[in-house]
Amino acid sequence: MTSGEPQTADANAPAPPAAPTPAASAAGTRDPAAPAAPGDGFLTMWRDLAVLGRSAASGGYRRYAWTPADADCRAWFRAQADARGLAYETDRNGNQWAWLGDPAAGGAVVTGSHLDSVPDGGAFDGPLGVVSAFAALDLLRARGARPRRPLGVVNFADEEGARFGLACVGSRLTAGQLDPDAARALTGADGVSLAAAMERAGHDPYAIGPDPERLARIGAFVELHIEQGRALDLAGRPVGVASAIWPHGRWRFDFHGEANHAGTTRLEDRRDPMLTYATTVLAARKKARLAGALATFGKVAVEPNGVNAIASLVRGWLDSRAPDEETLAAVVAAIEQAAAERGARDGVRVSVTRESFTPVVEFAHDLRDRLAALLGPGEPAPVLPTGAGHDAGILSAAVPTAMLFVRNPTGVSHSPAEHAAEDDCAAGVSALADVWEGLACR
Amino acid sequence: MTSGEPQTADANAPAPPAAPTPAASAAGTRDPAAPAAPGDGFLTMWRDLAVLGRSAASGGYRRYAWTPADADCRAWFRAQADARGLAYETDRNGNQWAWLGDPAAGGAVVTGSHLDSVPDGGAFDGPLGVVSAFAALDLLRARGARPRRPLGVVNFADEEGARFGLACVGSRLTAGQLDPDAARALTGADGVSLAAAMERAGHDPYAIGPDPERLARIGAFVELHIEQGRALDLAGRPVGVASAIWPHGRWRFDFHGEANHAGTTRLEDRRDPMLTYATTVLAARKKARLAGALATFGKVAVEPNGVNAIASLVRGWLDSRAPDEETLAAVVAAIEQAAAERGARDGVRVSVTRESFTPVVEFAHDLRDRLAALLGPGEPAPVLPTGAGHDAGILSAAVPTAMLFVRNPTGVSHSPAEHAAEDDCAAGVSALADVWEGLACR
Repeated sequence: MTSGEPQTADANAPAPPAAPTPAASAAGTRDPAAPAAPGDGFLTMWRDLAVLGRSAASGGYRRYAWTPADADCRAWFRAQADARGLAYETDRNGNQWAWLGDPAAGGAVVTGSHLDSVPDGGAFDGPLGVVSAFAALDLLRARGARPRRPLGVVNFADEEGARFGLACVGSRLTAGQLDPDAARALTGADGVSLAAAMERAGHDPYAIGPDPERLARIGAFVELHIEQGRALDLAGRPVGVASAIWPHGRWRFDFHGEANHAGTTRLEDRRDPMLTYATTVLAARKKARLAGALATFGKVAVEPNGVNAIASLVRGWLDSRAPDEETLAAVVAAIEQAAAERGARDGVRVSVTRESFTPVVEFAHDLRDRLAALLGPGEPAPVLPTGAGHDAGILSAAVPTAMLFVRNPTGVSHSPAEHAAEDDCAAGVSALADVWEGLACR
Repeated sequence: MTSGEPQTADANAPAPPAAPTPAASAAGTRDPAAPAAPGDGFLTMWRDLAVLGRSAASGGYRRYAWTPADADCRAWFRAQADARGLAYETDRNGNQWAWLGDPAAGGAVVTGSHLDSVPDGGAFDGPLGVVSAFAALDLLRARGARPRRPLGVVNFADEEGARFGLACVGSRLTAGQLDPDAARALTGADGVSLAAAMERAGHDPYAIGPDPERLARIGAFVELHIEQGRALDLAGRPVGVASAIWPHGRWRFDFHGEANHAGTTRLEDRRDPMLTYATTVLAARKKARLAGALATFGKVAVEPNGVNAIASLVRGWLDSRAPDEETLAAVVAAIEQAAAERGARDGVRVSVTRESFTPVVEFAHDLRDRLAALLGPGEPAPVLPTGAGHDAGILSAAVPTAMLFVRNPTGVSHSPAEHAAEDDCAAGVSALADVWEGLACR
């Protein structure tokens, strides 16, 4: 079922805007064990994808689930499957799959990631894992490897949750971790529900739900992802293996004060929730630092949000993560206490709502160790934890799962500035091919 | 040109939602010098106006300039003028005038305020001055007073600036303090320009501009307004006279950091502008307290404003006011310095833009003292400064101008909780009638 048709690059095409550049690979990040370049097929795929859903204003990507930009990315995925003669299917939850071999045979080794983005996200978060999967298949074929199990490439729907507020919707539904009714009712800032958005995009929202048979056919899932921190850069290695995903959650802090005129209300008569919020922001940073954790207020909503009005309500969302659940709970409790103490001084009532929580995910140790050894060469690949959630974290409850990270020298993530050098992308493709060869061809 | 027809109240009508209640007047705030009630005419006007532009959701008013809610208020104004047989006119800038006597005679004594509101504002800020003006005219007639000068009632357009971001547009244009082209180009959050909004409301946007002849006919302008603080309450007096409007301004603080993933970026690798913003909010409060000034951050905009994204940009708007310009400049400079110092620690660039500035307004001393004496009785009315801008502040550059304040026991302003007791409203109406009698009838 393979075409073996190699992808060819168009030498006259303009360089993709956010693609790895020769300048970057000349900057001393080359790994001697990696191939010289990720290959023409990779670059062609990268360039075709790079123009989809990109905002000319920000230079970032706006590929939100079930929008026209997302549909363009999904059409790209299908075209890649077709060009390679792979069997294509969209599952009940809108995840896309491309198969070499018959998945019904079981024990499939699947790799892939997602194509949607955060608001004004970068080119690599998600797409690197999908493009590298197709490129690795090309490399595997070029090596003449003969798979003894089915190989799959997957694009999970709605991983970032940028539109409907909940991350990993496609994988959660498939793993039975999200109620279909609750999913259908998710509604974005534009007032459109997930159900309506799916329907407009041509997907039946009443088909969604758990898909245990599909998961049972998968012997291992390996997601390749650009690193979202600097650990590999600090270690001087192009590719690493994930050990665990930190437990993490979102808490909404509501600071209730009293609206009043900023020009006439005496300071002593105010109940200004902005002061309580500000104190809480600074406390969050301090408590996280002391505990070796992370705590961030990145989203705020203010009412009435007028220049000359003392706020009546400030809502701030806390994102916090820690190496273990006990530390995370202690950090959040300390932040809540700081908020309550300052609130008492300000005459501001503070209420805290946990909006989401994801326990620690330990990836399968045997698979993780096998991958680290496979990707040597010489010494095993670095094994590192991550604070970010991924479809791999969702699937790990049902399927032996692992993750590979590709070096991101600046550590910047969820921004157009995220970047991987061309050589490191090549190392990632090669690592995925090694994984397939090691897990499915021997 | 007077009809002399008194307004009659409908005894079966429901109580207006935000009107002064008998309970409030029974609470010990009655002033022995004030009449027992503001009169049936006042209450009827209040009830008719109370239902216009009120949000059922918030209980507050959303009477933004040149919207249908504003048009309803303007129709109400015209009906009041017509019912009293006053000569009605809309001037080139959309301000509404009702005249008893011929304004061309000169030396007119004008009172009034505005009918538009801040977002979810209260019932009193603006409308109290307009309703009290018509009620004072009724009272003057009931007293049998014979005006020797023209008397005017005015409703200034777009005082709050809630829609187009600039306050006192109607009076600024009239006083030649706002360029007509700049005014036409003002654009609200809905993308509609002031010019387009005026046109849709049936007012010619190309007619706007300075109106010195109109101002030259005015001998004195007295604006009655609900107090926006607690000074009268603390002094135990129902009505006071304004001494000055504090100098005030708006400064936009832009905190430029770096967008990054909240779950994966080490604290030491972050450039998080929310931290710098939080420090600046707390510094503003402290610097203002030390200087006897006011400083408020009530409006914030964050990019990308995602729960799991470190902000790339936080914009915070500072509103600051002080008794004199030197103090104000010192407070703002100290806040800027605190922002810059913390920004250097956070790797965050801070830029500050002064978006508006209004110098101190000293109301005409002779008019102010005359009003304070008129409103005795026994001891002169309290004379107090205010931090809020008003059309009276704009007009004071061209016309002898004064302001009266009516007690607001909670001091709450720009909120549905602002309130004046029925007796205090009556005292305000009586004071306005006294002013007209003293300035125009002797």
